[in-house]
Amino acid sequence: MESAAARSRTEIRSLVRAQLEVLLEQNNLEGAKALLVPVQPADIADAIEDLPRQQQALAFRLLSKDEAIEVYENIDTNVQQLLLEELKSQEVLEIVDSMSPDDRVRLFDELPAKVVRQLLVQMSHQEREATAMMLGYEADTAGRIMTPEYIALKEVMTVSASLDYIRSLAEVKETIYYLYTTDQARRLRGILSLRDLVVARPQQTIGEIMTRDVVALQTDADQEEVARVIQRYDFLAVPIVDREERLVGIVTVDDILDVIEAEATEDIYAQGGVQTGDGDDYFQTNLLTVARRRVLWLLVLLVTNTGTSAVISSQQDVLQEVVALTAFIPLLIGTGGNVGAQSSTVVIRGLNTDRIRSLGPAKVIAREATAGLFLGLMLAAVVAVWAYWLQGDISVSISVGISLAAISVLASTAGSSLPLLFQKIGLDPALMSAPFITTAVDVLGVFIYLSVARAIILN
Amino acid sequence: MESAAARSRTEIRSLVRAQLEVLLEQNNLEGAKALLVPVQPADIADAIEDLPRQQQALAFRLLSKDEAIEVYENIDTNVQQLLLEELKSQEVLEIVDSMSPDDRVRLFDELPAKVVRQLLVQMSHQEREATAMMLGYEADTAGRIMTPEYIALKEVMTVSASLDYIRSLAEVKETIYYLYTTDQARRLRGILSLRDLVVARPQQTIGEIMTRDVVALQTDADQEEVARVIQRYDFLAVPIVDREERLVGIVTVDDILDVIEAEATEDIYAQGGVQTGDGDDYFQTNLLTVARRRVLWLLVLLVTNTGTSAVISSQQDVLQEVVALTAFIPLLIGTGGNVGAQSSTVVIRGLNTDRIRSLGPAKVIAREATAGLFLGLMLAAVVAVWAYWLQGDISVSISVGISLAAISVLASTAGSSLPLLFQKIGLDPALMSAPFITTAVDVLGVFIYLSVARAIILN
Repeated sequence: MESAAARSRTEIRSLVRAQLEVLLEQNNLEGAKALLVPVQPADIADAIEDLPRQQQALAFRLLSKDEAIEVYENIDTNVQQLLLEELKSQEVLEIVDSMSPDDRVRLFDELPAKVVRQLLVQMSHQEREATAMMLGYEADTAGRIMTPEYIALKEVMTVSASLDYIRSLAEVKETIYYLYTTDQARRLRGILSLRDLVVARPQQTIGEIMTRDVVALQTDADQEEVARVIQRYDFLAVPIVDREERLVGIVTVDDILDVIEAEATEDIYAQGGVQTGDGDDYFQTNLLTVARRRVLWLLVLLVTNTGTSAVISSQQDVLQEVVALTAFIPLLIGTGGNVGAQSSTVVIRGLNTDRIRSLGPAKVIAREATAGLFLGLMLAAVVAVWAYWLQGDISVSISVGISLAAISVLASTAGSSLPLLFQKIGLDPALMSAPFITTAVDVLGVFIYLSVARAIILN
Repeated sequence: MESAAARSRTEIRSLVRAQLEVLLEQNNLEGAKALLVPVQPADIADAIEDLPRQQQALAFRLLSKDEAIEVYENIDTNVQQLLLEELKSQEVLEIVDSMSPDDRVRLFDELPAKVVRQLLVQMSHQEREATAMMLGYEADTAGRIMTPEYIALKEVMTVSASLDYIRSLAEVKETIYYLYTTDQARRLRGILSLRDLVVARPQQTIGEIMTRDVVALQTDADQEEVARVIQRYDFLAVPIVDREERLVGIVTVDDILDVIEAEATEDIYAQGGVQTGDGDDYFQTNLLTVARRRVLWLLVLLVTNTGTSAVISSQQDVLQEVVALTAFIPLLIGTGGNVGAQSSTVVIRGLNTDRIRSLGPAKVIAREATAGLFLGLMLAAVVAVWAYWLQGDISVSISVGISLAAISVLASTAGSSLPLLFQKIGLDPALMSAPFITTAVDVLGVFIYLSVARAIILN
């Protein structure tokens, strides 16, 4: 398949999907089988997901056992569930028993508790124990996303004996690129890479070539912390230990890629006022659930807006006097909101990627407030001229300009200090900041504007 | 260091930083050297970044040559530049010549062109060629982030000969976990993993055990596409070929972690109306640059707001008649903006993570418009009651309720269709959507509201 690089991966994928569906419709099972031989498991998984439901199990049965497991691990959980229902119980059991423990736990998280119990009872002893242990850890922790399939060596083993041992296990372990040594009590003692082993002389012992400075994390570490450690040290995997320092599993970098993407989605959703269900896919969620998840957020922000309305109502006399002032309310709070969003965006992202560390909070807020002042003065000059041109009223124009500069400083200060405050008291700044910043900017902004206007116009 | 897992990584890092500074102040260089021996290069890099400037080169000189290179690769580019100025030219040259080509290219991107030319001239022939080739590719493409340090084997080599060959190269190559075979013309022919090699019998040939179905990308592939391929297939590295299908380098998963984070930051900044410089760090950028980058965006959004002001000005007669209407303008456009942000957030993130694929655009927009209708009706009911309570005017209350439902549908439709439209015509939806959605919601929203109010109240 020398053309693999020339054609884009997306094209190849849609081609396979289309061909597979046609072959299955023609009931040409041998042709379908041959088609899938050179295709990557992730692409076969995609093709099966896109087939009509009645063809999915049919296509899946074309795969060899080893391939079936790899493909199954790559399929979306809702199609995984459909396949479980379609396949015979023996087929199901073989797949579930052979899956990587971490993929299996991800599947079990989505299945009804009753089905999980049935499957657990039928699984082999060893796999059942590993799965039950992992299901005991909280969601989104190292213990829940790790795999117990690592290779442990003894310090007294020679390099050549170790290579033989690895050879005998390579088929069943998730990664053989990092190897760990443990003592009698299974406590983690050292780490070495397959590279170290390949480079070493055959008669050296593991104890001689391993590194004793091990970076390990505990089972209750948040998956974000695991991601940060792997990213920071450029690891392919990180060992996970329990409270007694015993090695219980490893988290591999391929799972971390998904964690980093999921965490970014969560932050982006929080910023956009959308609540994420635990790991589920928005595009597969039904509309009422979507609306229910969003309405809460909208109602919270509505309270802010009712505050603004109340301030305007209470100052109605100024507006009655000069209706022209009304025209600039959306502009002032809109611009204030934008300035606040800019400040909070960089501060929240800085906190989440751990890049804000080098500056203290006071310095960050001072920076942002100064930026807000610069921006406010620039924008105020533009807007004051434009307001005069629109309404021909110099006192309205001056009120708008002064208010805009003040609101801009207010917005950038609130936008930078509130996320830092929420972080400090242990609340998620990405989730909490927006409504409070909006309240500060809208309610106080309108209040500032109408007070300034009152002082300038009514006196 | 058995307590590594017990103490958090962050604590260890701050401890090392504090101890290092004290030891350097006491001029206890041996103590400082001993302190750093068991510390990971990434953590030493951090500690050096946080030292006062005059101590940075001093601390850096304590490291062994191999360690110095690893630490240098982990240091922030601006501290890298400072160190270049402080070190003697021979020391600089040794480091630059020994760095991984991909890290070197990242450094050269930040250095003044004159310095880069000087360094290039002094570098060894081989390293100079590799670097010049990579600098020739565009920023953020596979060619720019790859490393040319891969291991290529011949199909006729035996497993045991290959292992010997790898052993001789392992010290200098970035990864030895994936191995590639090429023909006489250096065209990519096959791939195998070190795992495959370790498991194979010594006398088998590479041609027998390698996989011919290679997933490769071209040098001009966007780094986001590279990230998606690695993530999709759970690869540790992906081979990069030129237009003639010749293997020129590989991109490894550790670099992809940084790409995924950087791309997420870019999306989050775009959503918050902040412009990112190419890869630079906001917290190290000076304030005037920050203000300059943000003001453009604010001015763009200001145009929207002046549109809203103009609509209000032109409808001033309705407001003159019933000043009470004014109180609800911020609420209506604020809520509309929030509904629009929710829709655009999920659609833009879906496009960027490639998860929207399974639904067609028409279906996505229909989904969002329906969600907007649900949300609008729920919110309208709440707001209408509240408006009546605040102002005691039934026609104002009805106007507000009807307008809110209409604006909500408008906002969710605009919020979902505009990102899809921008994607279609090749513009970045994350960057382009917000001002257009805001314009639609604010200008049309106020227009709808005042028109509804005019119809209900003035007739």
